[in-house]
Amino acid sequence: MSKLASNVKRVLVLAGVGNAAGTGAAVARRFAKEGYTVALLARQGKSLRHLEEEINASGGQAAAFPLLSYSRDDISSTWMSVREMFSMPEYSIRVAVFNAGQTVFKPFLEITPEEVQNSLEVSVSAAFAFSREAILSFKENSLEEPSGKRGTLLFTGATASLRGNTMTSLFAAGKFGARALSQSLAKEFGKDNIHVSNVIIDGVILTDRTRQMMGQRIEGFEDNSNIRINPESIADAFMYLTKQDRSAWTWELDLRPAHEKW
Amino acid sequence: MSKLASNVKRVLVLAGVGNAAGTGAAVARRFAKEGYTVALLARQGKSLRHLEEEINASGGQAAAFPLLSYSRDDISSTWMSVREMFSMPEYSIRVAVFNAGQTVFKPFLEITPEEVQNSLEVSVSAAFAFSREAILSFKENSLEEPSGKRGTLLFTGATASLRGNTMTSLFAAGKFGARALSQSLAKEFGKDNIHVSNVIIDGVILTDRTRQMMGQRIEGFEDNSNIRINPESIADAFMYLTKQDRSAWTWELDLRPAHEKW
Amino acid sequence: MSKLASNVKRVLVLAGVGNAAGTGAAVARRFAKEGYTVALLARQGKSLRHLEEEINASGGQAAAFPLLSYSRDDISSTWMSVREMFSMPEYSIRVAVFNAGQTVFKPFLEITPEEVQNSLEVSVSAAFAFSREAILSFKENSLEEPSGKRGTLLFTGATASLRGNTMTSLFAAGKFGARALSQSLAKEFGKDNIHVSNVIIDGVILTDRTRQMMGQRIEGFEDNSNIRINPESIADAFMYLTKQDRSAWTWELDLRPAHEKW
Amino acid sequence: MSKLASNVKRVLVLAGVGNAAGTGAAVARRFAKEGYTVALLARQGKSLRHLEEEINASGGQAAAFPLLSYSRDDISSTWMSVREMFSMPEYSIRVAVFNAGQTVFKPFLEITPEEVQNSLEVSVSAAFAFSREAILSFKENSLEEPSGKRGTLLFTGATASLRGNTMTSLFAAGKFGARALSQSLAKEFGKDNIHVSNVIIDGVILTDRTRQMMGQRIEGFEDNSNIRINPESIADAFMYLTKQDRSAWTWELDLRPAHEKW
Repeated sequence: MSKLASNVKRVLVLAGVGNAAGTGAAVARRFAKEGYTVALLARQGKSLRHLEEEINASGGQAAAFPLLSYSRDDISSTWMSVREMFSMPEYSIRVAVFNAGQTVFKPFLEITPEEVQNSLEVSVSAAFAFSREAILSFKENSLEEPSGKRGTLLFTGATASLRGNTMTSLFAAGKFGARALSQSLAKEFGKDNIHVSNVIIDGVILTDRTRQMMGQRIEGFEDNSNIRINPESIADAFMYLTKQDRSAWTWELDLRPAHEKW
Repeated sequence: MSKLASNVKRVLVLAGVGNAAGTGAAVARRFAKEGYTVALLARQGKSLRHLEEEINASGGQAAAFPLLSYSRDDISSTWMSVREMFSMPEYSIRVAVFNAGQTVFKPFLEITPEEVQNSLEVSVSAAFAFSREAILSFKENSLEEPSGKRGTLLFTGATASLRGNTMTSLFAAGKFGARALSQSLAKEFGKDNIHVSNVIIDGVILTDRTRQMMGQRIEGFEDNSNIRINPESIADAFMYLTKQDRSAWTWELDLRPAHEKW
Repeated sequence: MSKLASNVKRVLVLAGVGNAAGTGAAVARRFAKEGYTVALLARQGKSLRHLEEEINASGGQAAAFPLLSYSRDDISSTWMSVREMFSMPEYSIRVAVFNAGQTVFKPFLEITPEEVQNSLEVSVSAAFAFSREAILSFKENSLEEPSGKRGTLLFTGATASLRGNTMTSLFAAGKFGARALSQSLAKEFGKDNIHVSNVIIDGVILTDRTRQMMGQRIEGFEDNSNIRINPESIADAFMYLTKQDRSAWTWELDLRPAHEKW
Repeated sequence: MSKLASNVKRVLVLAGVGNAAGTGAAVARRFAKEGYTVALLARQGKSLRHLEEEINASGGQAAAFPLLSYSRDDISSTWMSVREMFSMPEYSIRVAVFNAGQTVFKPFLEITPEEVQNSLEVSVSAAFAFSREAILSFKENSLEEPSGKRGTLLFTGATASLRGNTMTSLFAAGKFGARALSQSLAKEFGKDNIHVSNVIIDGVILTDRTRQMMGQRIEGFEDNSNIRINPESIADAFMYLTKQDRSAWTWELDLRPAHEKW
C-alpha cells in the first residue's frame, strides 16, 4: 500500500453526458475542479465537445472519447483508448461513473420491441460492459492511502430503481437491472477494495430540459431549490462517496429536494 | 359482469416448462387438475411433448406450442396460435404464467457479452412480450364473477429478484428487471381488473436436477421437505393468487422451506 | 410425526376483535367454519361476547377470554386460562393470530407521551408477550402431518408496516416493530417448524366504521369491492398461510384492492 | 432567509455517548472540530464528563447535560436546560443526533418483560421525545443559507433497522421503530426545511468494547480497517448529511467495511 505520489493525476472515466446540463456534466466539472482528469465517454455530438472544451478552458483537464454505440465492443475499444492515453505513470484511473441510459415514460402497451431492446442495451448491457472495464482497470491499481481503495465505481439511479409504476415499466426494468448489478459488484469486489455504489435520484433534476418543461408549469421552478435537485448537489454526493475510506462504504444513497412528496 | 358460463373452460397460458420436473410443470399439472386447459409454451423438445402427453393422459387437457425463440416476434406469433385454437366461445384465456429464464451463477468477469444478451432477452424482453400478449388477451375478457377479474398474470421470481450477490450479477439483473415489470403492470392494469403478481422463490426447488446435485451433498435431501421446496407447493401459491378476489390482491409472495437460513 | 387424530379439534387463539366487524372477527368466523375452536382474546365488552355468541350460534365453537389489559402479565395469565380450557387431548392449539393495536393518524407534534406509551404497549410489547405464549404452546405440539408444522403465528400488518408517512409516525413505529418481531421469529423458530408470517393490509378494509366514514365520502364504497378490502378475503389469506406445508412458507404477503393507487 | 452571522455558533445536541469511544463521541468530536458547540445528553457518569473535558481541552466547546432517564419528562426538561444555556443570539441549535439505545442480542424466549419495556423506552419512546424537542427548536430557526435548512435531525441505525434475525427480535423492534419515526418525520417536516436522516451502520464499529471482544477472536482486528468501521468515518457521514443543501437530501445512508459479508 502506498500513497499516490503527489504528481500522479487521478482519472475519472464517465459514461453519459447527456446535453452537458445534467448529472453527468456536473460530476465531470466537480471532479475536474478537484484535480481529476476526466475522460468523457458519450455518443459523438456537440454536447460532448462542448463539455470537454469548457472544462479545459476553465483550468481543468478533460478528454472526449466518442462512443459509436453502447455495445460491449464499442465500450471495450473506447476504454482501450482511454487506458492508452493514460498509460503513463503520472495517471491513475481511480473512478468510473456510469450515467448512461434514457428516461422513458410510456404506457406499457405503446412500448415497441425496439424500445425494449435499446433500453436494455443502454441501461443494462452497457452497464455490464462498462463495469467490466472499470473493474479490470481498478484491479491493476495499488491501494490508495489513506482511503484504502483500488477504485470507485458509481451508478446513477432513480426512483425507478426502487419502484415500478404506471408509465415506467421499461425505465424501471433497466434501472432495477443496473441496481442488481451494482449490488452484486459491491459484494463481489469489496474484498478487492473496489467500492461500488448506486445513487438514487428521487426527484426532478434542474437541467436545460426540465427548466423549460417544468418552468412553464411550476412558477419559480428554476429558483426554488426546495422542489428540484441541483446537479451540483448530486456531484457532491458522488465526490463524498469517492472519498469514503475502506472502513465505511455506502452502497446506496438517495437524494431528493426538501419539499418532495415521497 | 357475469359468471363464466359453467360450460366455459378457463385456459392457462404458461411459458417455460424446463425439463418438466420443476415449477412450470407443477403449475401446469395443478391448473389442469382444477379444470383449466393448459397451453404450454416452450422451446421444442422432449420435455414439452412429454408434459403435454402426461397431462392429457391423466384426464387433463393440454396443448403444446413450441417456441422457436423467446424473441417478441416468436412469442407474438405463438400467442396468435393459442388465441386461434381457443377462439371458440367455450374457452376463455384467464391466466398467464411467465416462468421462463435461466438460473445463472457465474463470477462477473467470466460472463460473456452473449450471455448478457441472451439472459436479458429471455428474462426481460421475453417477459415484456409475453405480458403484452397476456394483457391484450385479458382486456377482451369480461369480468369473471365472483372474483371480479379479467385475468391473472403471474411471474416466477427468486431470491435474486430482491438481492444481487457475488455470482448472481446476471441472474439478478434479469430477475430485478422482471420484478420491475410486474410491479409496473400491477399498478397500470389493476384499474382494468387485471391482477399481476410475482412469486419470490427463496430456496432450492426439488427437481430432477437438484435431486441429483444436492442429493449427493446433503443426506436426505429428497425426503426432507424442511430444506427444499416442493414444486407442488409453489403451484398451490399460484392457484391461491389466481383465486384472490378483486378486493384483496397480493403483488408479491415469498416462499421458502421451514429450515431455510435467510 | 403423526397425523392429528381425526377427533382432535384444532384451536385458534386470536387477540384483537375490534368491534367484531373487521379483520379479527372475519378470521375467527373463517377458522370456525373450517372446524377450528376459536379462543377470542380481547378487552371485555359487547363486541367480544357478541362474536362469541354469533360463532356458537352458527354451529362453530368459540370461547371469549376477556383481557384486562395488553400487559405481559395479563396476556400471560389469559393464555394460561386458554391452555387449561383446552388441555384435554381432544384439543390442540395450532394457530395464533395477533390482530391487536390501534390505527393512529396524527400530526407528530400532537402526539402525547401517553399515546406513545400506549401504542407501543399494545402494538409491540403485547406482540412480544402474545408471541411468547404462542411459541411456548407450539413447542409442545407434535408435527402435524402432512403440513409438517408445529404451529402458525400470524400478524396483521398494514401499509404502515413498510413506510412511515406524515400522520403515521406513531402507527408506523408500532407496525414496524411488530414486523421486526415477526421476521426475527420466523427465522428463529422456523427450525422448530413453527411458521410465522405477517400480512400487510395495504388499503381500506370494509368495516362498520369505514362503511360510515368512507360511505359518505365515496359513492358506492360499500358495494365496490374494487376499492376496499373484504375482511373475508383477508381471512382467506390467513387460512392459506396456515395451510402452507413446511416446504414453502411465506413470511410476508400484501393485500390491496384492484383499483388501489399504490 | 439569511446567512448565519459569522459570529453565531452552531450548536449540536447529541443524545447517547456510550463509553465515549464509539459513534456518539466521534460525532461530538468531529462537530466540535468544525466549530460546533456540542451539548452532550447522556446518563450521568464518567464517560460523559470525560468527553466534555476532552473536547474543551482540545480547543472545542462542549457542555454535559446529564439525563436522569430516557423518559419524555427528563428529555424534555434537559432540552429546556440546553435551550436556556444557548438562548443568547450568538448560538443557534442546528443539529440534533439521536444515538441512544442498547444493542441487545438474545434468544427470544430469554427476553424478560422488563427488557422489552426498557428497550422500547430508550430506542423508541425516547426517540419520539428527543425528536419532538429537536423539531420544536428547529421550527424557531431561520433558514440558514446557502444550505436552506432550519435544522438537521440524525438517527444512528443498524443492520437491525432493516432486518430482524435470530437473536435480534428486541433490538430490531426498537431500530425498526426508530426508522419508521425517522421516515415519517422526514416526510412531515421536509416542507419546513427540516432534514431528517437515518444512518444504517451495517458492521462492527471499532470501540473499546469491540477492540477487546473481537481483538481476541480476529487477528489484526484493530488495525484492519477492511473489516471494522472507524467511528470517525461514521462521523464523516453525519457531517456530510448535515451539509447537504435543501435540493438534495438523503433519508437513509448505509455504511459497512470493504470486506464485510452482506
